Amino acid sequence: MSRPSCILAFSGGLDTSLCVVWLREELGYDVVTVTVDTGGFDDEELQRIAARSREAGAIEHLVIDGLDELWEDWIRHIVASNYMKGGLYPLCVGVERVVQARHLVRIARERGAAAVAHGSTGAGNDQIRFDVVLRTLAPDLTVHAPIRQLGWGRAEEAEYLAEHGMHVDASTKRYSVNAGLWGVTIGGGETRTSHEAVPDHVYATTAAPAHAPEGGVTLALGFHRGRLVTLDGEEGHPVALLRSLGEHAAAHGVGRGIHLGDTVLGIKGRIAFEAPAAHVLIHAHRELEKLVLTKWQLFVKEQIAQFYGLFLHEGRYLDPAMRDIEAFLDSSQQRVSGNVTVHLEQGRLLVRALQSPHSLMDATRAAYGEESGLWDGRDAEGFAKILSIQSALAHRAGAPEE
Amino acid sequence: MSRPSCILAFSGGLDTSLCVVWLREELGYDVVTVTVDTGGFDDEELQRIAARSREAGAIEHLVIDGLDELWEDWIRHIVASNYMKGGLYPLCVGVERVVQARHLVRIARERGAAAVAHGSTGAGNDQIRFDVVLRTLAPDLTVHAPIRQLGWGRAEEAEYLAEHGMHVDASTKRYSVNAGLWGVTIGGGETRTSHEAVPDHVYATTAAPAHAPEGGVTLALGFHRGRLVTLDGEEGHPVALLRSLGEHAAAHGVGRGIHLGDTVLGIKGRIAFEAPAAHVLIHAHRELEKLVLTKWQLFVKEQIAQFYGLFLHEGRYLDPAMRDIEAFLDSSQQRVSGNVTVHLEQGRLLVRALQSPHSLMDATRAAYGEESGLWDGRDAEGFAKILSIQSALAHRAGAPEE
Amino acid sequence: MSRPSCILAFSGGLDTSLCVVWLREELGYDVVTVTVDTGGFDDEELQRIAARSREAGAIEHLVIDGLDELWEDWIRHIVASNYMKGGLYPLCVGVERVVQARHLVRIARERGAAAVAHGSTGAGNDQIRFDVVLRTLAPDLTVHAPIRQLGWGRAEEAEYLAEHGMHVDASTKRYSVNAGLWGVTIGGGETRTSHEAVPDHVYATTAAPAHAPEGGVTLALGFHRGRLVTLDGEEGHPVALLRSLGEHAAAHGVGRGIHLGDTVLGIKGRIAFEAPAAHVLIHAHRELEKLVLTKWQLFVKEQIAQFYGLFLHEGRYLDPAMRDIEAFLDSSQQRVSGNVTVHLEQGRLLVRALQSPHSLMDATRAAYGEESGLWDGRDAEGFAKILSIQSALAHRAGAPEE
Amino acid sequence: MSRPSCILAFSGGLDTSLCVVWLREELGYDVVTVTVDTGGFDDEELQRIAARSREAGAIEHLVIDGLDELWEDWIRHIVASNYMKGGLYPLCVGVERVVQARHLVRIARERGAAAVAHGSTGAGNDQIRFDVVLRTLAPDLTVHAPIRQLGWGRAEEAEYLAEHGMHVDASTKRYSVNAGLWGVTIGGGETRTSHEAVPDHVYATTAAPAHAPEGGVTLALGFHRGRLVTLDGEEGHPVALLRSLGEHAAAHGVGRGIHLGDTVLGIKGRIAFEAPAAHVLIHAHRELEKLVLTKWQLFVKEQIAQFYGLFLHEGRYLDPAMRDIEAFLDSSQQRVSGNVTVHLEQGRLLVRALQSPHSLMDATRAAYGEESGLWDGRDAEGFAKILSIQSALAHRAGAPEE
Repeated sequence: MSRPSCILAFSGGLDTSLCVVWLREELGYDVVTVTVDTGGFDDEELQRIAARSREAGAIEHLVIDGLDELWEDWIRHIVASNYMKGGLYPLCVGVERVVQARHLVRIARERGAAAVAHGSTGAGNDQIRFDVVLRTLAPDLTVHAPIRQLGWGRAEEAEYLAEHGMHVDASTKRYSVNAGLWGVTIGGGETRTSHEAVPDHVYATTAAPAHAPEGGVTLALGFHRGRLVTLDGEEGHPVALLRSLGEHAAAHGVGRGIHLGDTVLGIKGRIAFEAPAAHVLIHAHRELEKLVLTKWQLFVKEQIAQFYGLFLHEGRYLDPAMRDIEAFLDSSQQRVSGNVTVHLEQGRLLVRALQSPHSLMDATRAAYGEESGLWDGRDAEGFAKILSIQSALAHRAGAPEE
Repeated sequence: MSRPSCILAFSGGLDTSLCVVWLREELGYDVVTVTVDTGGFDDEELQRIAARSREAGAIEHLVIDGLDELWEDWIRHIVASNYMKGGLYPLCVGVERVVQARHLVRIARERGAAAVAHGSTGAGNDQIRFDVVLRTLAPDLTVHAPIRQLGWGRAEEAEYLAEHGMHVDASTKRYSVNAGLWGVTIGGGETRTSHEAVPDHVYATTAAPAHAPEGGVTLALGFHRGRLVTLDGEEGHPVALLRSLGEHAAAHGVGRGIHLGDTVLGIKGRIAFEAPAAHVLIHAHRELEKLVLTKWQLFVKEQIAQFYGLFLHEGRYLDPAMRDIEAFLDSSQQRVSGNVTVHLEQGRLLVRALQSPHSLMDATRAAYGEESGLWDGRDAEGFAKILSIQSALAHRAGAPEE
Repeated sequence: MSRPSCILAFSGGLDTSLCVVWLREELGYDVVTVTVDTGGFDDEELQRIAARSREAGAIEHLVIDGLDELWEDWIRHIVASNYMKGGLYPLCVGVERVVQARHLVRIARERGAAAVAHGSTGAGNDQIRFDVVLRTLAPDLTVHAPIRQLGWGRAEEAEYLAEHGMHVDASTKRYSVNAGLWGVTIGGGETRTSHEAVPDHVYATTAAPAHAPEGGVTLALGFHRGRLVTLDGEEGHPVALLRSLGEHAAAHGVGRGIHLGDTVLGIKGRIAFEAPAAHVLIHAHRELEKLVLTKWQLFVKEQIAQFYGLFLHEGRYLDPAMRDIEAFLDSSQQRVSGNVTVHLEQGRLLVRALQSPHSLMDATRAAYGEESGLWDGRDAEGFAKILSIQSALAHRAGAPEE
Repeated sequence: MSRPSCILAFSGGLDTSLCVVWLREELGYDVVTVTVDTGGFDDEELQRIAARSREAGAIEHLVIDGLDELWEDWIRHIVASNYMKGGLYPLCVGVERVVQARHLVRIARERGAAAVAHGSTGAGNDQIRFDVVLRTLAPDLTVHAPIRQLGWGRAEEAEYLAEHGMHVDASTKRYSVNAGLWGVTIGGGETRTSHEAVPDHVYATTAAPAHAPEGGVTLALGFHRGRLVTLDGEEGHPVALLRSLGEHAAAHGVGRGIHLGDTVLGIKGRIAFEAPAAHVLIHAHRELEKLVLTKWQLFVKEQIAQFYGLFLHEGRYLDPAMRDIEAFLDSSQQRVSGNVTVHLEQGRLLVRALQSPHSLMDATRAAYGEESGLWDGRDAEGFAKILSIQSALAHRAGAPEE
């Protein structure tokens, strides 16, 4: 009789290698490893991962290109929402767990698998994001998270692997780096506390601002309905444009930051991050919106975006509330078309100029030209008089008695 | 019989000089001019203003120091709210109209005046802020806004003044600058459109980032219950600390920006601004809050702060809703005490390190040390399982029928 | 040379009759009167209105059926939002001004008119709703509001009309009644203060609850994607279903209320209202949503609905923010299908039973049946433990120092 | 050596009786039982509970009066927030778990206990509310929830008790009733589904509306700063007033309802409830607020109240965010003083009349008397013109290109 199979999210590190062996040896599964590329791997790395999968005894290894859906289902909406957690952090790698989990379920269905698995520990956000998606889309499948369940140290893990004929380096690096299309996060070291400054050298993909080229670079970002469609006038696939934008921004030291925030589990965490493309894209988009959206569009959008970002961070991507918010966001983007000129120089970003066929500034000027003003002083006097009524009445209604 | 008197907010420029003469000559008032110093004037300027008041025929000129109340009633709460309009602009000079209007009413009461007046045009936000406060606090007084009412050009104004023996320069400057403790705004020129870049030379008080000293400066900001109480360990009056902070930040090119937003009247406006102290103070405070406030404190506070900033911008300072929001903000600041180390260099701001007796990060570490973890893998599994229930049920409840 | 024409919203009362004559005689317009039927007129009334238009000297009178668009563009979304102002008032007649104003502009375009006009006074909400729509859709047309401009009393108006050969009753009724498809409002009399009880006899269309039939009636409302599609199993056009529902509810004394709230201008107003169909429809819909939407859908929807209702009340229907909110609402309605059984008796409404193919309750039961529980006690323990982390850390982080 | 002690929340039913025996026999604790009276027990019941505690072998039984703090720390704020979950349900009994848990911790500290315990199952909300408070206030104590841990059926529980010499009726009633000062909830039976109507006879404390006295009763509620201070002119302790109000309302069939909502764990639940005092108090208070608060106070308060109610429902009472929201609520209540006349009749509630020294309606009338109007038609025209600017500009700025 054939063994049941288990589909495992696989990065080729110590943890997920252990998962393969454990699922195979202890739980009797045929293990299929899946690596979803969301921008964090080059070809060499992908080959190394595939080799590791074979070595660990997986019956099959799959590599999935997740970049397009990462753009279409997540990044596009994050940009539309202008969401930066705590005003700074564009949720660099969190949403990628959702992409991965979704593919695990799809593959499990195709293969008739009995289980899905991931290598997250019990400490962080990723386990929650994986679990919530897996249990939502496939409540009938067993979900395994061997690392969380076992709770071993790395030496213990390496020893177990060695016992099963696989030798993996168990030394820990001072910093743990997590990379993807939308940014890089760096944990460990000084980020474990709030009172230690994070040294410059932890940043891997961006130039140090002080050493970036003097003079900087000026770029033109073209948006159509909220989507980036051109860079310096060149059209391209969004993922390609994003990568190109990221290279420019990284070269000029733009997009570094420190994020201090709440994990899904409720403790505070601190990480360094580099998100050059995200940083430029969101800032450029936000300024364009200020030109074309009304005051109340901007206000309500800002309120709703806080929910969107929170839910995304906490793994609630599949809650139907997210689809409702996305419908709002999509509607709001209808006029968010135009060109944004940004200047990047030594870590600084300046949105220099904005143009849009839907510019409310241009509409005002057009109006003034035509009819010498949308209002006169007497109108403004009446407006101010009526605006004061409620506070005047409240003032008249007296201070509270003791 | 004595003439009725009118209390006029006075800056000594062409507009308010005209107001004095007009109120005196055409409306028959004894005019008392009032200049409220909210950080925008040096001694020389104050003397020039007083001379202009005499020249225009005011019966009395008063100079009021409004800095302490500007801090206590406005800036303190803006910092507590972390509010930056559009993510950038800390409402530099708008609240100062409220300070001024409040003094006009007080002085009118003390002098038994029949009217109050301001020199705002009918085009912008300031007229609204003046009017709303004046009509709220003194609905029984007449409010005059001669410039708005007359709608003259500057040449016409100068001619009228000349006819009354007063010679004032009517030439317009390319840029109009408005300065105060909380920042400087620069209008006119390229800011009239969205598509022209604002040149570096319009900024008057901050160093150009590219020419600021290499290496920058590192500062320690001490907060107690949300208030800045020390700078590099030195205690001081908040206004003095703010000025000192502003000088440091300005020297390192920090705090410049372009604000594109909605005026109270509904059109889009664009201004350049320099708010070095505000920029550093709000960013430092915001990071400290991330360390000591819970997730839901941060979330609800962010929502409510959007209302606070909007109402402040739109002149609704005296709406009782503002007092309710301030009660929320004050409550939220109880644990916002600690030290924030910021590094300022060539226009960049980095919050390097944070310490607080109320640090939730330290509380976590303390917890881990004591009892080997606040939760284990099995707890996390249960948490994730339960977190997935609603989206799982929604998924199971099926896609909508057509 | 032909005279310019003006399109006037016309109800046939003293005010709008005066408008016809005034616009004709004093301003030299050919006046086209337009009556948009939004549910408040029967045939006899419509004939009386047409006769009054001829008598006043209009060159043409048009009657427009506005019921379908009232449903499609407004009521449908109000129901989707569950909005009742102050928890009680379903915005009975306010949105009808928007329907009317939109038709004025359309007709003005078709006829090449130079102006549009309405008969609102300067006291209330309707003038704002008219003006905002007219100025938004047709900034090039002149907007006349003669009654607001003249500020005459009713006797003065009647006298002017008499001078122009038209005799209209100028006596005022104790109560002013405003009726439409979505409800009836009753102003005047005791509603002018807050301390007088509104007598039962002011209500015109609903049975007095105490005298409604004992035993009441039980109705089944069928919803598809948030829209009412059947009543007691019978399909029908929404407007017809709404009318039928209203008749049932009115007969059982359901839907009366007193609304105390803020006018657009800022003063408090109090009105009695009868909205039997609205009352039942919104309550039934709201309960159905509780069965099929997730917690966060309900929560975010409730927040956003407050904005929707406020903007609708204040005449901001044409702000693009409204379209964005409607996109959210439309998305949220995808699963709001099912049957709601309501019992109406002597003024009481009880939602008795709910069924939906998308019921999350049924999904839960299905889940329990299949797999003996979505979670166990150990999961719940872990969930609670992790849920307590932030408040536990905050508690540990200590009370604020003095 | 003495045994460690455990403080147990005790209701005297099968579940908590089992807890005493289990904690004593299996875990070796000296068990102290604590019954916190939050309005659900009469003297006879309290004696029965005490006897059961002795029988089960507790070393001590304590009865705590929790009514005052229930009012002061919870009900007062719920009324200030006007919160009714889903527009209907005033969170009847949920907050009582927090009162109970707080006393458990206090007593545990006083006795030097090693553990605290409650008898909640793993299915509902109460376990979460208990656990979160216990773990927040006393992370060093062990928390036991034997019923959740054991997961036995009632027969199994009774059998265990019988083995230990205690005979408790294990038969289940069709409905489970939970009573307290703030209301009664009724679960089980038809409430287990959404499609069965809940029969009238399940309600225990309120008259059936149809059989309540014709003519009803009219009551005057006096508020001072948001607190109920008089009933029909008589002053009294809030708890006494609340009870008296509840008796009146119950006699007239007011306050019944069906609540369908989300449990903390994420499934939908349905219960019947009777909350006569809560229903009247919140409605009366809400109307009074409409008279004295400004539009924006009401709006922001409504938004923030949604968070308050959600967090209260979900056991987050000890999150500091709740204290911040309460500071907002307290500030908002400063002028919420006055008299509210309500009429209760056969299940119907009508707020008939309102009076307040801080009435904004009276302030308006005062203003009109003095100065013939707060604004004129020309002011209103200017107001409307300026209000239309943004939507007019957006309209002019054109429809989105495809």
